[in-house]
Amino acid sequence: MTARWLALSGGVGGAKLVLGLADTLPDPRRLTVIANTGDDFEHLGLAICPDLDTLMYTLAGVASPATGWGRADETGTFMQALARLGGETWFHLGDADLATHVERTRRLAAGESLSVATRALAARFGIVAEILPMSDDPVRTVIVTGDRELAFQHYFVRERCEPPVRAIRFEGAAQAKPAPDVLARLADPDLAGIVIAPSNPLISIDPILAVPGLEAAIATAGRPVIAVSPIIGGEALKGPTAKMLRELGAEASVVGIARHYRDLVDGLVIDQVDGALASAVEALGLAVHIAPTVMRTLDDKRTLARAVVGFASTLTRRRD
Amino acid sequence: MTARWLALSGGVGGAKLVLGLADTLPDPRRLTVIANTGDDFEHLGLAICPDLDTLMYTLAGVASPATGWGRADETGTFMQALARLGGETWFHLGDADLATHVERTRRLAAGESLSVATRALAARFGIVAEILPMSDDPVRTVIVTGDRELAFQHYFVRERCEPPVRAIRFEGAAQAKPAPDVLARLADPDLAGIVIAPSNPLISIDPILAVPGLEAAIATAGRPVIAVSPIIGGEALKGPTAKMLRELGAEASVVGIARHYRDLVDGLVIDQVDGALASAVEALGLAVHIAPTVMRTLDDKRTLARAVVGFASTLTRRRD
Repeated sequence: MTARWLALSGGVGGAKLVLGLADTLPDPRRLTVIANTGDDFEHLGLAICPDLDTLMYTLAGVASPATGWGRADETGTFMQALARLGGETWFHLGDADLATHVERTRRLAAGESLSVATRALAARFGIVAEILPMSDDPVRTVIVTGDRELAFQHYFVRERCEPPVRAIRFEGAAQAKPAPDVLARLADPDLAGIVIAPSNPLISIDPILAVPGLEAAIATAGRPVIAVSPIIGGEALKGPTAKMLRELGAEASVVGIARHYRDLVDGLVIDQVDGALASAVEALGLAVHIAPTVMRTLDDKRTLARAVVGFASTLTRRRD
Repeated sequence: MTARWLALSGGVGGAKLVLGLADTLPDPRRLTVIANTGDDFEHLGLAICPDLDTLMYTLAGVASPATGWGRADETGTFMQALARLGGETWFHLGDADLATHVERTRRLAAGESLSVATRALAARFGIVAEILPMSDDPVRTVIVTGDRELAFQHYFVRERCEPPVRAIRFEGAAQAKPAPDVLARLADPDLAGIVIAPSNPLISIDPILAVPGLEAAIATAGRPVIAVSPIIGGEALKGPTAKMLRELGAEASVVGIARHYRDLVDGLVIDQVDGALASAVEALGLAVHIAPTVMRTLDDKRTLARAVVGFASTLTRRRD
């Protein structure tokens, strides 16, 4: 059997690296992605799973490169008609995108688990890599701001990440079980390495690690764990990662990322612009690989994926 | 106060006359339409009310003239995407049309009654006539064919009205109450007349009359009741009315329509092509008015509406 690889991912940035991995690994069927479901929510009666969808759309080649969310082959007739009816329009749902939510909601209402529904949808999209939600149980990221607790999408989309973050909670995480196959994949003797994709550590990766048993299974898998920094030159390419890190008292730099992950990962991939910080990361006990981490083209994604896999193969699991 | 008019209506044909009435009566706010909800159904998790929607779309000027259902300002992206995901596509839902179902479903789930939700949607469409569902309680038309009972839309859309009809049931009708305001409108001292629109009597008008108390309130309102024949020259312009009448042993002619309604109506409007049958209708005790009943243009609709109102004003309620 060819080696199995496992990736933890949130939305856009993570999905880009996952696409690079699926496109360069010898057998993409042996790539398993554990996806964040902390920003899932119910809206207009629909079960919406933004990170699962971004992963599916990216791997299926239908993601919109312009927006970073939603689909490229999209129209907006539903949303216009809903606005005319006075419906809630703060969360944009394209007409094609709607089909995913309606079909998922139908499957869940019929009694399917989220992982079974996800498998069915991904198969319909022709995706060969395996996408597993971190859990079939609901986990909901809650953003604690100055005086309010905001459901994640209310913070992220409706309030455009503007309220300062004081704390983050993952509601339901303590009661959640890893989705079927998650622990089995981590225990697979053919597992070669675990990649933490360049997603927001606070709201994309931490919810995954908050599912009881999941972080321990990663730590004890005995395979190198590599993170790719979502922070480049002190900023995230997209999204509020840097702002949130600062608001929570952490450093918005590759060093801050290294500190966040130091108990779990063996190595960190950082961008060339952060080369001067490599020794500070190494001082925290992590191996460092310097590579171009901005993924604009498919070639960029493949190149970074190859760099990550190559880096991992030079490492052995040092902890546990 | 100007006179109040009341219409009973199903879908396409009925909605055309209702538009004519709304366009020619001195004050369309004094026009109340009682709509069939027997062909409502739940599909893909959505509450779909085809006749309410056809009435709203027609009165709002957004109905598709080409199909007879759905909207003119429509795209089909959702349905294409749903087909790719293996979802149920036998019932077509346009992208703009979907907004109506999603917003209605949200309102019902939030605890609104169907009549309150309908009032809100109609207001958003800028409709000034009053559209009332016949009941806020679920009534579901069931078509009994040779060996099966079919939910209405399964018979009508999925099976294209092909199975021969043996009987028709209105599930839930016996327990249903007329929607709020329905009986009050029928008891309004300013009521001038009641129009049964040219809809299928078996599946559009009979479900309305099956709601306990509704037919009695029409019969005792003391105002002329006029029906417009949906059968022209032995056929319906659209839909299975003639086929269903024949399968149930009735005559597919204006005489068959007159027999169907004879206990309730005072007069029947028939098309010019059926002029030779006028005396047969009169022999059943009904007044007859002969007029062009094919409504292609807005002018056709207005002309027929004026003829109906004029005819009614020549009649007095003879029964009860």
